[in-house]
Amino acid sequence: MDSLDEKSNLSLFGLLKEEIPSNVASCPPPPIALSPTFSPRRRLPPLFGVRGKVSTSPSLPEFAGKISTSPSLPEFAVTPRSVDFNAWFQDVIDKAELTDDGPVKGTMIFEPYGYEIWEAIQNYLNVKFKKIRHRNMYLPQLIPIKFIEKEASHIEGFKPELAIVTRGGGKELDEPLAVRPTSETIVSYYFNRWIHSYRDLPLMINQWVNVTRWEKRTKPFLRNLEFLWQENHTAHATFEEAEKKALQMINLYKDFAYEQIALPVITGRKSEQETFAGATCTYTIEAMMGDKRALQSGTSHNLGQKFSRPFKTRFMKKNGDMEHVWQTSSAVSSRLIGGIIMTHGDDTGLMLPPRIAPIQVVIVPIWNKSYEETSLLEAATTVENILTEAGIRVELDKWDQETPGWKFNFWEMKGVPLRLEIGPHDVTNKSVVVSRRNVPGKAGKEFGVSMEASTLVNYVKSRLEEIQDVLLQRAISFRDSNIVDVSSYGELKEAIAQGKWARGPWSASAAEELKVKKETSATLRCFPFEQPEGDKKCFMTGKPAEEVAIFAKSH
Amino acid sequence: MDSLDEKSNLSLFGLLKEEIPSNVASCPPPPIALSPTFSPRRRLPPLFGVRGKVSTSPSLPEFAGKISTSPSLPEFAVTPRSVDFNAWFQDVIDKAELTDDGPVKGTMIFEPYGYEIWEAIQNYLNVKFKKIRHRNMYLPQLIPIKFIEKEASHIEGFKPELAIVTRGGGKELDEPLAVRPTSETIVSYYFNRWIHSYRDLPLMINQWVNVTRWEKRTKPFLRNLEFLWQENHTAHATFEEAEKKALQMINLYKDFAYEQIALPVITGRKSEQETFAGATCTYTIEAMMGDKRALQSGTSHNLGQKFSRPFKTRFMKKNGDMEHVWQTSSAVSSRLIGGIIMTHGDDTGLMLPPRIAPIQVVIVPIWNKSYEETSLLEAATTVENILTEAGIRVELDKWDQETPGWKFNFWEMKGVPLRLEIGPHDVTNKSVVVSRRNVPGKAGKEFGVSMEASTLVNYVKSRLEEIQDVLLQRAISFRDSNIVDVSSYGELKEAIAQGKWARGPWSASAAEELKVKKETSATLRCFPFEQPEGDKKCFMTGKPAEEVAIFAKSH
Repeated sequence: MDSLDEKSNLSLFGLLKEEIPSNVASCPPPPIALSPTFSPRRRLPPLFGVRGKVSTSPSLPEFAGKISTSPSLPEFAVTPRSVDFNAWFQDVIDKAELTDDGPVKGTMIFEPYGYEIWEAIQNYLNVKFKKIRHRNMYLPQLIPIKFIEKEASHIEGFKPELAIVTRGGGKELDEPLAVRPTSETIVSYYFNRWIHSYRDLPLMINQWVNVTRWEKRTKPFLRNLEFLWQENHTAHATFEEAEKKALQMINLYKDFAYEQIALPVITGRKSEQETFAGATCTYTIEAMMGDKRALQSGTSHNLGQKFSRPFKTRFMKKNGDMEHVWQTSSAVSSRLIGGIIMTHGDDTGLMLPPRIAPIQVVIVPIWNKSYEETSLLEAATTVENILTEAGIRVELDKWDQETPGWKFNFWEMKGVPLRLEIGPHDVTNKSVVVSRRNVPGKAGKEFGVSMEASTLVNYVKSRLEEIQDVLLQRAISFRDSNIVDVSSYGELKEAIAQGKWARGPWSASAAEELKVKKETSATLRCFPFEQPEGDKKCFMTGKPAEEVAIFAKSH
Repeated sequence: MDSLDEKSNLSLFGLLKEEIPSNVASCPPPPIALSPTFSPRRRLPPLFGVRGKVSTSPSLPEFAGKISTSPSLPEFAVTPRSVDFNAWFQDVIDKAELTDDGPVKGTMIFEPYGYEIWEAIQNYLNVKFKKIRHRNMYLPQLIPIKFIEKEASHIEGFKPELAIVTRGGGKELDEPLAVRPTSETIVSYYFNRWIHSYRDLPLMINQWVNVTRWEKRTKPFLRNLEFLWQENHTAHATFEEAEKKALQMINLYKDFAYEQIALPVITGRKSEQETFAGATCTYTIEAMMGDKRALQSGTSHNLGQKFSRPFKTRFMKKNGDMEHVWQTSSAVSSRLIGGIIMTHGDDTGLMLPPRIAPIQVVIVPIWNKSYEETSLLEAATTVENILTEAGIRVELDKWDQETPGWKFNFWEMKGVPLRLEIGPHDVTNKSVVVSRRNVPGKAGKEFGVSMEASTLVNYVKSRLEEIQDVLLQRAISFRDSNIVDVSSYGELKEAIAQGKWARGPWSASAAEELKVKKETSATLRCFPFEQPEGDKKCFMTGKPAEEVAIFAKSH
């Protein structure tokens, strides 16, 4: 592509191509007097800084020796998690700058740091979906309401939550349109257009989109009027193939939860009561949050022929017979970010599993005389480059307007897994101090880690892997110590009253399931795939039961 | 992360972790009889195939020697471009499976192949934006109408195109909400919340989102009720910085257009008439389509203080004074895909520049006796792996239910830049036949290209680069031979009547600009950055002019 570099070739007039001759084509200057320009030194794009806060710390302070621990500064204080979990959650979201309220009640915006976590989720899952040949596409978000009405339980489930467009282009619409709450109906409309023969199956698509549901009680990340998600939709020739797909997807989500975001979810089947509006069967991954409430973190539905029948989507089989296709859908959403916060966060703020962290390592240079700045920054930049080249996501915090102590608080609030501190002595010794986000104070520090490239890279990589593992193991222990095996309704009530999950044999009716909900606020989260062996008796009725179920309060 | 692999560690009951014990937890089988299963051999996920078409070709045909040229099969025939450009455009979109009509008039869906082109655009630009530290985020799409009304010309420009949500959650809303047509107003609302000091500037964000505009005359990719785009928004401390940013962004788009999608756009400034509703100045990249009409392919706006004043977004300067911030916004959209089709496509279908092609190379094995299949597929798979490892996007077309001739037509319609054909003789000679999409018939073929890994990779890479360059140079020649320099209104009329672009000195009034539009249907596309030297006289008024302008009919 040499010719692309010789831009003079592309000239219209044979002139040498210039970077915009501003004398002729630039925007006319504004009619008001201009302020003098200035270029404040700044380490990072705004929105990395505490929102709108003008720091009061001295501009080139002397700190050496004063900052080996990082006492919490008032501007980073949050409600203790143990005092009020929900207030803590909101505080962390605010101070870590993940979201802000939308102007319409119940909507939220994803600030850059929050969105970057979503991008990390997307990057991983997108590759996984493509590997199993789900293909991305995009379907319109405006859906005729008659589509949504085609499947009876679907409209019943979604009607109360619809946002409706009634005017467009300055006119009342003949037919009001729903803003996509989910896409099963419009997908089924296209499946009808595209699927004719067994050769068109299986058909597997995915889309990354915004969806709108008019929720009454909203909470950042967990329930919002508008949120971000991906939705897989597939069509198959047989019930068995659809079932296999629905299970494949919930297992894919489970693996993602364990391996990437360190959420030890429990995989299982929803009760009929809790099954998705329009599915024959719903699989779920359920995570235990720091307050022991359950969070439904992803679902996968076998839709059977519930949509292909009203949408009349049939295919010709090899033997010439016609049959309705078998569909599935599955989704995870930006709610996962809420799950990450509520599983790993602590009173110092966010704590991100390294594999999902937008910034895995932050480097904080510490100088005590301004003339040391140059050599310090040089060493810090060398370290930054070494780690970046090794594929580690690094941020060098060069800002000179905050103290190292402030920066420690700041990056701990953001949940960055590892911090490298470099002071004058470290430069002399060619070493760094490494602090782990997950172990507070001196216990989490290691001094004198060599700056030598391969040593440092190996050290950092193994530390990150270790942190990933520690976060998962900690969450597993927490989960397992808070699930109680129950054999009577009384035991369930007691477990739920303690805020724990109750697990026990269940074969009772939907009415009895509702009774549990009314009396204890706990819902049947799932029949877990992993079942104990042996005979079981329903803890509610005493009758034989085939499976244990898990009950818990949920977010 | 060894412990993640030992899944038994994660067991709840100490059982060996299994892949779902289907006897307990799986979905209950449906109440109706199941059809027998079958596994049709298929080369590709559906939607790669011609939509819903059951092929009539023999299943294991003998073709050798019959397919050195690729005569167009009737199912791939399109309206000739020279006969009816718009019908040709629609035919190519249909047959290359890029889009389908949405159920709501004026909406469209992105089919996987169309969406993959959009992903290629995203992947490139996303990296560029991050490099200049624009940070992705997500803002709600429901915008209070009072926001949009805050900037007078903005509401005037967008009001006729708004989709309005008036009902939500089963109730009439107190305040109707607009579905995002663009985000300047909601961005400005947040800029007000986030920006307080000069230290918060510059603030630079981007989002990849859907937008909704109630267009009256719609056309796939070019104008739709809903489309996909990215929107950059920035805030700065001075007019000059905002101006610099606006120019930086239009140049970034220009470079993208030239280098990635081979669109030799002309960069310039819009006239006041054509400036974005709410901008003080709009820059544009204008491309010439195959029918010589102009396509506005990207814009960048200096918004001055037009939004910061009504939204009261001020910052404290270093000297303590308060000033309103200076904003910009810039965007490209899925319309670019329309530009690619209309610039490079021909009567055989789509023609994709290699850098943006979802599939850069397709391998078509050609067998004439069924027993040759194994060795042929083995060789083809080896070639596929060699190219994939070299980072080339490859598809091996193994399907046994269509003839090679059909496949040639199919992949040419899809615009794949290079085709590798492998027959029994090629396997013996360890060579392949290479066909270029941009040179029809035998002239575009090269025989006996060695299968040896490094030779083949070098050959394919240089061929792809060459095609990229040829497409660009061809588009440049076409553009330059269809721009006429005019020095009178008569000459302009003549040029426009011939379907060409007219370029000439212009300093006339907005009223005269409107007159040109009324009388010739041509609009002032831009004052190009690249200007001829010397004195100029306005071709309309004869008065002195500082700049030439380009007039053209547009899509």
